[in-house]
This record gives sequence, structure tokens and C-alpha cells, in this order.
Amino acid sequence: MSLLRSRTDPRWLDLARADLPAILADHAHCEKKAAASAVKLVAEHPDRPDLVRAVARLAQEELQHFLAVLAEMGRLGVALPPDTGDPYAQALLRCVRGGAGRLLDRLLAAALIEARSCERLALLAGALEEPRLRELYARLAQSEAGHERLFVELARRHGSGDVEARLAELAEEEARIVARLPLLPRIH
Amino acid sequence: MSLLRSRTDPRWLDLARADLPAILADHAHCEKKAAASAVKLVAEHPDRPDLVRAVARLAQEELQHFLAVLAEMGRLGVALPPDTGDPYAQALLRCVRGGAGRLLDRLLAAALIEARSCERLALLAGALEEPRLRELYARLAQSEAGHERLFVELARRHGSGDVEARLAELAEEEARIVARLPLLPRIH
Repeated sequence: MSLLRSRTDPRWLDLARADLPAILADHAHCEKKAAASAVKLVAEHPDRPDLVRAVARLAQEELQHFLAVLAEMGRLGVALPPDTGDPYAQALLRCVRGGAGRLLDRLLAAALIEARSCERLALLAGALEEPRLRELYARLAQSEAGHERLFVELARRHGSGDVEARLAELAEEEARIVARLPLLPRIH
Repeated sequence: MSLLRSRTDPRWLDLARADLPAILADHAHCEKKAAASAVKLVAEHPDRPDLVRAVARLAQEELQHFLAVLAEMGRLGVALPPDTGDPYAQALLRCVRGGAGRLLDRLLAAALIEARSCERLALLAGALEEPRLRELYARLAQSEAGHERLFVELARRHGSGDVEARLAELAEEEARIVARLPLLPRIH
């Protein structure tokens, strides 16, 4: 049961399969940024021990995924280019409110980003030619689905205000952002 | 063979033993900041694959240590207070030059911080009463010694200029910073 309100345009998969090096590089950067963002969340909420523990463990997993993707890139002779930023995540994170709504919004935005990553990694798992990469992507998609659930649970436990209403709003916004952005061989 | 040019004042250990909650809390924050700083180093040097891989693995280990310290704090009923910053690391990082010397200096500063952490964790391992904490600190001290060696290796491989001369300068500076700062129940 994904949080997503839209499905990725089927043409995305053609673009992704046609430029696997670009997909791998963007994916590596996504995992690295997910780890950085998790460590930041830990640093900002020392007073919430269950959140701190869960999100620190998640950061470890994101680093593990980053290393797994780097290993495939090394095997395929693909170098890691500079990170040019993630307009999708940036647009979604611009919806995060300040003040009392901030933590809720960050957790829900993180859940939605994990949900979109999960959807696209699962598409790759079903479409790539190499069995090794299909297996990697199937495994990582499953892990992203777990992260999606974790962030929703944390939002319900730590967020203030009407969590379900805000989730619905942000999920609609996420779908609008995806529809607005160009289709590119990127995870987002 | 530690890089350090000075030994910690023996009175530090008395302060540390007298306020174990403060030591554990500061230690947890140190591990968290080490992870954050490692992820930043990874993000800034995508073009250096061996550094990226080694430092991403190190970030995972720092998160593991963070979780291990949090677990002890939970067991002892010690809450994680807000992070008030680390004047020791801040002072050392102010010595990092810009431009071509920046990466070398960051790697050497990281090596020295690991060396000082290693020294103090080993002191705790030898002096705390609880066998469980002695074992934890012995294990973590050993891991910090490995990180110290890793950062020196990376500095030799990736740093530009006279690495040994710069290491000597920064090691002297580190000892001056430690001598100047008040003795407190903190890791640094």
C-alpha cells in the first residue's frame, strides 16, 4: 500500500534502461543524501529516543545501499559524477512548514520520497536485463518500502496536528511535482 | 603509535568517572558528528572512489557506535541532552586551510580527533567500574585507532603538499588546543 497518488509515466523506464550509468549515479547520490538527511534528523531531535534510534539505523542502511550501488558502478566501469542536486526532493521539501508542523512535514516528505524511490526501484527490478541488477533493485525496493512505513509511523507518533490530512495534502503535492518535472534517467 | 603530542591530564579521568552520564552523552554526540562529517566528506569528493568507499563505511561504523552508546544510556536511564557543540573539534577545524590544502587538512584533523578519542576511550576502558562499559570502551577505542590510521592513509594518498610536515604542525596545534581548553567530563 504505497502512499503515492500517481504512477510513474511508463516512458520513464525506457529512458532509464537506455542510460543505466545515469540511473546508477543518480541512485548513488540519492542514497547518500538520504543518509545525510537522516543524520540531520537525528541531530535535530535528541529528545526523541525512539526516532533517534530508528533513523540512525535507517542512515546506516542508506549508506549500505550507497556502497552496494557504488560496487555495481565500479564493476560496470561507471564513475560517480558530481551531484547536481535533486529538483524533485527540493520541491517537496519546500512544502515543509516551519514551527510546530515542521517535524511532521519532514517525516511525511521523507515517507513520500521513499515511496517514489520504492516505486521506481521496483520498476527497474522488473525491467533490467542483468539478473544481478534486478536482484539488487528488488532488494532495495523492499528496503525503501520499509523506510516509507517507518517514516509514516514516526509521523503518527511524533507529528502534531491532523497527520492524515497533511499526508493527503503532501501526497497530492508530490504527484503534482512528479507530473511537472521532465522525464529523465534519474531515480527522481 | 598514536599521532598525539600530549597525554590527557590524569585529572580528566577523575572528572569523567564522577560524571558518567555527561561522558556518555558527549560521546554519543561525538559519534553522531563523526558520522555527519564523514557523509559530508563523501559528498564533497565523488571523484575519489577509494576515499568515498572507505569513508562511507566509516560513517556506518560511527552510527553503530552512536547506537551502542545510546543503548547504554537507555539502560542507565540517561537521556540524550541537546548537543552544545564541541569547542575542541571546532578549534582544530579552524586550522583547515582553503584551496589545495583543504582536503589534506581535513583528513589530518579527522585523524587527530580520532587519535584523541581513542586515547580517552582507552582511559575509560581501563578505569570504569562496570565490566560491560569497560568492554564497550575497549572495543570502541580499538575502532577509533583504526579510523586514525585510515585517515592518515587517505591523507597520504589524497593530500597535496608535504603531508608529514603538515601532520606535525597540526599535531602540535592539537596538543595546544587540548592544553588550552578546560578539563571537563567530555570526550573532547
